Amino acid sequence: MKYAVGVDIGGTTVKIGIFEENSKILDKWEIPTVKTNAGKQIITDVSNSVKSKLSEHGISMSDVLGLGVGAPGAVDENGFMCGGAVNLGWEPFNLREAFEKELGGITVKAANDANVAAFGEMWQGGGRGHSDMVAVTLGTGVGGGIIVNGKILAGATGAGGEIGHIHLEDDEPDTCGCGGHGCLEQYASATGIVRLAKRRLAGDDMPSVLRDGEVSAKTVFDAVKAGDKLAIEVAEKFGYYCGKGLAAVANVVNPQVFVIGGGVSKAGDILIKYIEPSFLKYAFPPCRGAKFAMAELGNDAGIVGAAGMIINN
Amino acid sequence: MKYAVGVDIGGTTVKIGIFEENSKILDKWEIPTVKTNAGKQIITDVSNSVKSKLSEHGISMSDVLGLGVGAPGAVDENGFMCGGAVNLGWEPFNLREAFEKELGGITVKAANDANVAAFGEMWQGGGRGHSDMVAVTLGTGVGGGIIVNGKILAGATGAGGEIGHIHLEDDEPDTCGCGGHGCLEQYASATGIVRLAKRRLAGDDMPSVLRDGEVSAKTVFDAVKAGDKLAIEVAEKFGYYCGKGLAAVANVVNPQVFVIGGGVSKAGDILIKYIEPSFLKYAFPPCRGAKFAMAELGNDAGIVGAAGMIINN
Repeated sequence: MKYAVGVDIGGTTVKIGIFEENSKILDKWEIPTVKTNAGKQIITDVSNSVKSKLSEHGISMSDVLGLGVGAPGAVDENGFMCGGAVNLGWEPFNLREAFEKELGGITVKAANDANVAAFGEMWQGGGRGHSDMVAVTLGTGVGGGIIVNGKILAGATGAGGEIGHIHLEDDEPDTCGCGGHGCLEQYASATGIVRLAKRRLAGDDMPSVLRDGEVSAKTVFDAVKAGDKLAIEVAEKFGYYCGKGLAAVANVVNPQVFVIGGGVSKAGDILIKYIEPSFLKYAFPPCRGAKFAMAELGNDAGIVGAAGMIINN
Repeated sequence: MKYAVGVDIGGTTVKIGIFEENSKILDKWEIPTVKTNAGKQIITDVSNSVKSKLSEHGISMSDVLGLGVGAPGAVDENGFMCGGAVNLGWEPFNLREAFEKELGGITVKAANDANVAAFGEMWQGGGRGHSDMVAVTLGTGVGGGIIVNGKILAGATGAGGEIGHIHLEDDEPDTCGCGGHGCLEQYASATGIVRLAKRRLAGDDMPSVLRDGEVSAKTVFDAVKAGDKLAIEVAEKFGYYCGKGLAAVANVVNPQVFVIGGGVSKAGDILIKYIEPSFLKYAFPPCRGAKFAMAELGNDAGIVGAAGMIINN
């Protein structure tokens, strides 16, 4: 039996998994991300943890097909972190080469964490059976990952699939985190949904359950499911912009499927009901056939995708 | 010496070229596109013409690395023409397999003509030295082709890179050819520029050389170069929308370079001056580094790209 290792480096913990070559997970665990000293220790910590766990399982390095790794920053085709990783304290360097060195020259593949998660969803999750896919992460921000013909689209500076800042609205007064106005992220992220809800609540005094407690993406969609009219208006606005943004994406890369993940996606299939009408309105007819599916792997998408880059390359 | 054949099937003529494996063109010629009988004869005509020309040059089939072909319709990764080719009378069929059959099983690669031309520009034209490129064709309509990591992005239904119908303007009263309102093509194509110019001319009676003759993309940009104020306003509007549309493209695929071709591009570098400010305004910061270059291969881009798919695969 041969094995692959998947690593997902986050700002607080590093998730690691050992996978059998048939894609079955053998073991998964986490170690803390030590960010002191510009994060220099992280790669050594991960490598030592991997070596020790492989040894526990009686797996020799010669039976390891390789290690895949996702990191929170732009990573180009060669495994170079173009802008470092702000959340880890990393300056620009070659992540792939650093792991190769620590692990005695085994095959290493490195990519941006969102792109790796997208690859995982294609291999084992909501995008299974497809080779042209766009993963859309509706979390604190809006991120994404694009798979073209079964491969990650990294982009010139590792920013491929960073769809959150597509401009959609000329008349947006609020400023986006990127400095722009009217970005997809301002309407389709958890933060954006709260912003839309608060703006709507302030607009008049229409009754709504949202007036009585915390306003979050979750409470908004819970209220939608309970038939709250104001919440439904907010969901329609969310869907209008999200559909319009994904139509632009479809008009560029013509995917088979969009896989929706991130915290907001916990609301479930109901999101698609609000996204689809606007998507169909703005997508070019040959690109309208793209399906919508929900992400399935949750927090494991990163380690699954990282191992998948090795096993399913 | 080994050779590759490049074929570019158009609605009036088929362009064909024989290339040496070092990329040098040995011969190029055209044959008429016979569209009668649902275009069934085209592939046989092309194959016979290729065989006869190879024979003239004393090249045996065993020295031919393969044949690349671009056709005016959506072509998927497998060479299947998903929607046929309206301009040729073709119903959906597998173009790659049809040529393989006619040519005794040599390697054949087929793709959409705009994507093939984009590949040509990457290999030998304005995108030389780059592997992540977007070709933008500003002609009667707006088309394009996307190259990711040196390969054509075909898309799920062969519509990858068909960027002309990205929605950019909510307040556009005129209807686009696709049925939508406010598509990139309505502002950045030759037809779109004429539309913008006529609308501006009708707006008031500001003097302009454009009032005295034919209004075309060429006369508009000639007037811009001569300092005509009204024409400059039209060019600014063109540039605003074109830059905004290409920013959306950059935010999805993060290319190294945009290569601008098509009839409108005959105006030259001046286009970039009008596109760039809006591009920089709307592009996500990590994607702003994309360069702009002009297409260099003109009508040969198709045969060069088609041969390139064989030689530079």
